[in-house]
Amino acid sequence: MTDLDSLRRQLPVGIVVTDPDTVEGYRRDSSDLLHPGSPLAVLRPTSALQVSTIMKWATATSTVVVPRGAGTGASGGATALDGCVIVSLEKMTAIRDVDIANQIVVVEPGVVNADVGRAVAEHGLFYPPDPGSFEISTIGGNLATNAGGMRCVKYGVTRNSVLGLEVVLPDGRILCTGGRTVKNVAGLDLTHLFVGSEGALGIITSATLRLRPRPSGTATFVASFPDLESGGRGLNAIFASGATPSILELMDCATINMVEDYRRMDLDRDADLLIIGQADGDAALPEAEAMAAICEAMGADLAMATDDIAESEMFIQARRLAGWAAMAQGPTVSEDVCVPRTRLVELLEQIHDISTETRIRIATVGHAGDGNVHPILLLTDLDDEDEQARAMDAVARICAAALALGGTITGEHGVGELKLPWLEQQVGRTSLDVQASIKRALDPLSIMNPGRGF
Amino acid sequence: MTDLDSLRRQLPVGIVVTDPDTVEGYRRDSSDLLHPGSPLAVLRPTSALQVSTIMKWATATSTVVVPRGAGTGASGGATALDGCVIVSLEKMTAIRDVDIANQIVVVEPGVVNADVGRAVAEHGLFYPPDPGSFEISTIGGNLATNAGGMRCVKYGVTRNSVLGLEVVLPDGRILCTGGRTVKNVAGLDLTHLFVGSEGALGIITSATLRLRPRPSGTATFVASFPDLESGGRGLNAIFASGATPSILELMDCATINMVEDYRRMDLDRDADLLIIGQADGDAALPEAEAMAAICEAMGADLAMATDDIAESEMFIQARRLAGWAAMAQGPTVSEDVCVPRTRLVELLEQIHDISTETRIRIATVGHAGDGNVHPILLLTDLDDEDEQARAMDAVARICAAALALGGTITGEHGVGELKLPWLEQQVGRTSLDVQASIKRALDPLSIMNPGRGF
Repeated sequence: MTDLDSLRRQLPVGIVVTDPDTVEGYRRDSSDLLHPGSPLAVLRPTSALQVSTIMKWATATSTVVVPRGAGTGASGGATALDGCVIVSLEKMTAIRDVDIANQIVVVEPGVVNADVGRAVAEHGLFYPPDPGSFEISTIGGNLATNAGGMRCVKYGVTRNSVLGLEVVLPDGRILCTGGRTVKNVAGLDLTHLFVGSEGALGIITSATLRLRPRPSGTATFVASFPDLESGGRGLNAIFASGATPSILELMDCATINMVEDYRRMDLDRDADLLIIGQADGDAALPEAEAMAAICEAMGADLAMATDDIAESEMFIQARRLAGWAAMAQGPTVSEDVCVPRTRLVELLEQIHDISTETRIRIATVGHAGDGNVHPILLLTDLDDEDEQARAMDAVARICAAALALGGTITGEHGVGELKLPWLEQQVGRTSLDVQASIKRALDPLSIMNPGRGF
Repeated sequence: MTDLDSLRRQLPVGIVVTDPDTVEGYRRDSSDLLHPGSPLAVLRPTSALQVSTIMKWATATSTVVVPRGAGTGASGGATALDGCVIVSLEKMTAIRDVDIANQIVVVEPGVVNADVGRAVAEHGLFYPPDPGSFEISTIGGNLATNAGGMRCVKYGVTRNSVLGLEVVLPDGRILCTGGRTVKNVAGLDLTHLFVGSEGALGIITSATLRLRPRPSGTATFVASFPDLESGGRGLNAIFASGATPSILELMDCATINMVEDYRRMDLDRDADLLIIGQADGDAALPEAEAMAAICEAMGADLAMATDDIAESEMFIQARRLAGWAAMAQGPTVSEDVCVPRTRLVELLEQIHDISTETRIRIATVGHAGDGNVHPILLLTDLDDEDEQARAMDAVARICAAALALGGTITGEHGVGELKLPWLEQQVGRTSLDVQASIKRALDPLSIMNPGRGF
C-alpha cells in the first residue's frame, strides 16, 4: 500500500485526485515566470476534519503540502513542488454564519471574495478588502497573502478585517484563534501570525471577518497629469490637505494606452499619469471635488469629479481593466512593490528606466494612496529564455529600487517563491532567523509549503 | 563579583539602580490586587544598544527580566518578580523622526502617548490610540498590551497604527520588523506578533507609528436611558443605521453617580445608562444629530447633539473622569472584558448581579461601540483579606460572564498575571501549546517576563 492509498482509505471517495489531466490544472498559480513541480496528488477536502486527517497523514509520511486557493497568486506561493500534495480548499465554500447586528461573517476559505460582499449587501454592509482578483480569488488565498486592493487606503488590508481563524496545524491539530469581538488581547496574537504566512504554518479552514457599513454615498474624481512630477505633487497635496480618500489609484502612460487598446474608455493617451480616486460618506462629492481641485492646482491638464454612479463606475472600471488588458496580450509578471508615498514618483521614474534597460515593456498601475504599485511586465513568449532572463533582471531591479527608496519587495502579493531572493536584503538575517525559529516551532518537519514566503 | 557588578561594568553610571527606596517605586504597576516580588535592581537604559547589553547579560546569567513602561498597566504585566531585574524604558524618550508628508512618526518606547499627538498636532495630524491613561502611559506599554481607547471604534487599536518595530530579543540581538510603508507582506508579520505580547518575547526599543489627518470637525451627542434595555436598543439601532461613530462610550448608573460625587458635571443621576458619542468629518453634526435621534426613538429620556467645542469637551471629560473618580475613592480593580456588541446589555445585567452577590461595588464604564467595558471594582481596604477574596471572585465571575457571552477576558488591558487563570478557558489547550512553542523559539531560557501574558 502506497502512502497515498493509506490516505485514500481515510477520506471519502473523490477527495484524493490523481488523474493526470486534473492534477495538471493545479500545478501552476498566476506566476508565469516560475517552473512548477509535479505533485503526487490533488486533495480537495470539504471540512476542517478532513484537512486534519490530511495533515496527520502528511506528518506521519513526511509529505510536503502546498495549500491552494483559486490559484490567482502572482508570486508562486501555490505552485506545485515535486512530490507534494496540493490541498485545494475550493470545496470549502460555506458561509457558516452571517451576524448582521454584530457586522461579522464566518466563512470557509473557498468562498470567493466578492461572494462575501454579495452575501451581506442587502443588509447595507460590505467586506472592504478588494484585491484586483476579487471576483475569482478566495478568502483563503486572500488571508494567506494578506491581500489588499483599492479600498485599503481607507479601510486597511485583509489583516484589518480578520477577527479570528480556525487553522489546521501541520500535525493535524485544529487551532482556533481570536474570536468574535472587535478587541481582544488574550494571549499572543496568533490570528495575525497566520494572516500573510503564505501557507507555511498551517491551513486556514475558517475565518471570522469584520464587515463595515456601506457608505451613504460615493463620488469619484479623475485627474490627468502631463508628467510624473506634477502627478506626484498632486498626490502629496491631497494628503497634505487632510483628505481621506476611500480609493486613490494611478495608471501610467503605458497602462492608459494598454487599457485603451483593450477597450475604448476615452482616457487621455498622452497623459503621463492618471489618478482615479473616490471619497465616500455624506460629504463624498465636495471631498472628491476638493481633491480634483488640488490636482488641477498642482498641474493636472484635466481634473473632474462626479457622483453620477454610472460615470463613477466607468472610471473605476477603467482602472480595473488594467489587469485584464495585460493578461489579454500575453504572458505577464505582475510585480508588487510599495514605498513611502512621497517616493512614488522616483519609483515610477526608475521603473521607466528599468523598462528601457531590460527591453521589457512595463505598464505600471496601482494603489497610489498606499505607495503600492504593480509594474506589469508584458512578455511575448514564455519559451524565450532571453526574454525570461531579462524579465527576472527587471524584477530584481524593481525590488532593488523599492528597497533603496525605503520600501518593500511586496505590498500585497506575498513573497511566494518569486520574491524570496530579495527578502533577506529587506528584512535582514536576524528577522529570517526568528521567522525560521517560529516555523520550526509550528512545523518541525517543514512539510508546509517549504521555500515559500520566508 | 556578583552578576549585577558584571552588568554595572558594561553600562554607564546610573543605569543600574539598586537603592532600595528607588527600587521600591518600581515593584508595582496599577494592579492593586497582586503581590509584587522583590527585584534585584532597576535598569534604566537610554539606548537599544544598552538594552542589548542587558539582555546578553540576562541570558548569560539566566536572570529574569520584567520590562516596564509607565506602570499604568491594570493586569500586573509589569509587577516585579522575585530576583528579576526591572528594565524601565522611561529614559528612552526620543521622537526619532517626524515624517509629516508620509504621516509617520518613529518614537522610542518611553514617549508618553499624548506627546506623540502633541508633536504632530500643528501639522494637522493625530495619533489615534488614546487609552484612558494617554496623558501618563507610554508607547512601549501601549504596544505591549495593544492598548485601546475611545477612538478605537473608528480608528482601531494600537496594532492598527504600528508599521514597524525595533525589538531587542532575549539573547540581545536587535530585530527590525516591518518598515515605513503602509502595506508590507514581506515574510511573517513579526510586528504584529510583538504587539500585545506583554514583554514576553523581547523589549521594544522603537516603533514606527502611522498618523492620521485630524478630522475637519467633530460633534458630540449624549443620550440618557432610563434602563439598560432601552440603552441596548439604542446602541444596536445606531449600528443598524450604518453610522460610523468616532467615539461611542457608556457609563452605568454607578459610574454616573461616582463621577458626579467627584466633580459636578450635571449628569442625570437617575439614568441607568448614559451614552456619549462623537462623529467626525465634514458631516459630523448631522451624523451626531442622527445618532441622538435614534437614541430618542429607542427610549432615551434625553438626547442631544452639539458641535460646540467646549460643550463637547465637557461631555468627553465627564467620561474620562470615571477612572480618576474611581481612583480618588480608594483601591480599585479596573476590569476589562469585551463581548460581541449585541451582548453588552446582558453583560451589564450580569455585572450588576455579580456586584450584589459578591458585595463588591462595581461601576461600569467603557467603549460601547466595541463591546468593551471596564467594570471598576471599588474596594475599601487592601489589607481586608475577605474583601480581596470577594474581589477576586467578582473578577472570576465577570470573566466567566464575558466568555459565556462569546467574549474575551481582556479587550485592551492584557492578560498580565491577573487574568492568567482564565486564559485557557478562552483560547483552549492547543492555543496555549502553540503560544508556548513560539515563546520557547524566541526565549528558550524563559527569562522574559515569565508567567505573564500567556
